[in-house]
Amino acid sequence: MPWRLLLSLVPALAAASGAAAQALSPAEIVAAAPESAWVEVPPEDLLVFDFDGGRRIVVAMAPQAAPTHVANIRRLVADGWFARHAAIVRVQENYVVQWGDPTDKAELPTGLAKARDGYEQPGIPQAFRALPFPDAYGARVGHARGWAIATDGTAHWLPHCPEMVGVGRDMPPDTGSGAELYAVIGHGPRHLDRNIALVGRVVLGMELLSSLPRGSGPLGFYESGAERIPVRSARFAESLPPGERPRLALLATNSDSFAAWVEARANRRDAFCVRPAGSADICNLLPPARRLMQPE
Amino acid sequence: MPWRLLLSLVPALAAASGAAAQALSPAEIVAAAPESAWVEVPPEDLLVFDFDGGRRIVVAMAPQAAPTHVANIRRLVADGWFARHAAIVRVQENYVVQWGDPTDKAELPTGLAKARDGYEQPGIPQAFRALPFPDAYGARVGHARGWAIATDGTAHWLPHCPEMVGVGRDMPPDTGSGAELYAVIGHGPRHLDRNIALVGRVVLGMELLSSLPRGSGPLGFYESGAERIPVRSARFAESLPPGERPRLALLATNSDSFAAWVEARANRRDAFCVRPAGSADICNLLPPARRLMQPE
Repeated sequence: MPWRLLLSLVPALAAASGAAAQALSPAEIVAAAPESAWVEVPPEDLLVFDFDGGRRIVVAMAPQAAPTHVANIRRLVADGWFARHAAIVRVQENYVVQWGDPTDKAELPTGLAKARDGYEQPGIPQAFRALPFPDAYGARVGHARGWAIATDGTAHWLPHCPEMVGVGRDMPPDTGSGAELYAVIGHGPRHLDRNIALVGRVVLGMELLSSLPRGSGPLGFYESGAERIPVRSARFAESLPPGERPRLALLATNSDSFAAWVEARANRRDAFCVRPAGSADICNLLPPARRLMQPE
Repeated sequence: MPWRLLLSLVPALAAASGAAAQALSPAEIVAAAPESAWVEVPPEDLLVFDFDGGRRIVVAMAPQAAPTHVANIRRLVADGWFARHAAIVRVQENYVVQWGDPTDKAELPTGLAKARDGYEQPGIPQAFRALPFPDAYGARVGHARGWAIATDGTAHWLPHCPEMVGVGRDMPPDTGSGAELYAVIGHGPRHLDRNIALVGRVVLGMELLSSLPRGSGPLGFYESGAERIPVRSARFAESLPPGERPRLALLATNSDSFAAWVEARANRRDAFCVRPAGSADICNLLPPARRLMQPE
């Protein structure tokens, strides 16, 4: 199989074989990772949505992947737009949860840039570590700086996996403003890769979105106002009082712990497992996230 | 890319290119499929679970993939065991919904066979149609007789995709009785392929399982009896009165309509799409299911 040839490109995986030989489970590897293997998401990139009913999700934004859209979202947040106008309007089984303006008529703040942004970036990131696993969509996949990445060698992009957050748009590719967002639920709809902007990942509270009742309208839209779940507030962590600020860290994708975790995910060796897969899907390899304690 | 070489193995995909040229969407292709392209699931293989709160799911059983487990489940159903003892006990985010006996102490009917069954079958099914797409788990993937299939050339198996139903077990691989079942939610945990038995697929009502609140206990187990959702009845469709019998058909995986649907799923051509993927994941290619009208 040709992807086995790629193994030599992944020194970190080979280095991890020592840990693997001890047959630690993926969860044990994460629990044993040293502090130095964790990278905190900067509070200015951590977006906290509070929805009605006490539902809080925390999104790690990806300004490196979608600079224009992330800037737009900062502007919408600063304006208080989401809290004034947005609600969860759509939950489609095995596809997406979407929140935005149900009326589609609320005025947007000035200064939002429209751009075909967040679809892909040129080249391959310098920090990219390729995986030796095939990809159903024909891309080379791996990680860079805390993110799962897919590439065709000339461009790279974030893959549409569960937890990923994107920007809804109309037909023309440059129409998304950032005021309509969606999170992927179910099996990753990777056909959306490079066709619509991804701007981040839900790193806390995903289960509060994925367990919402599916909408009965076409495409899973809620058909009545009573079903919609209003956004109560949207704030970047940096603007919360220090004691209430959520703090999140991701396992560094260039750490030995991460390489050992990937290897163990692909080669489960516990007593339950009969036949390790020897491979894994990129959507089953989103970097582990961990909640950090509040500062004293 | 090596998988392109496989294209020649798939005459049906080539034959479908006429339909693709008209740029019908996957949904339009399914809607336009002739009656002859649909195959009804035999009522003796359609298992109807009614859970508390009016939640009904319908499972198409796969006796060809797991003959012993399906026979066990028929025995449990005939005995009324699920209605007497089973409830939804576990909902783990991005993994599984599981139902069985919360006490783990209810006596099982006699005559259940214990076997390592439903993990894989030898060879490749005669009806197998390989897809020209890579697989993240290194298998060749395709379809046979209404089912998604993965194979390494010497054996074949059902892949762990959303909607697939499996048999819970203890550590030894031959310990599953069929009394503990799970359905996959979230991104397909394909590392379970060949490690645990799959016995069917939820073809109706999946959204009623995937939207359940996640359990707060370890592995998503519900921690209180109040959270558990009892099974009210488990009946094969053949035992329901004709007027109440659900009837389900799957798009025949050897039909031209199915080949056109696969091609369109891999190459979305509508006005929204900027860049067709040219490929698709097997878990995004489970055969379309359609509800049939009751007989007059």
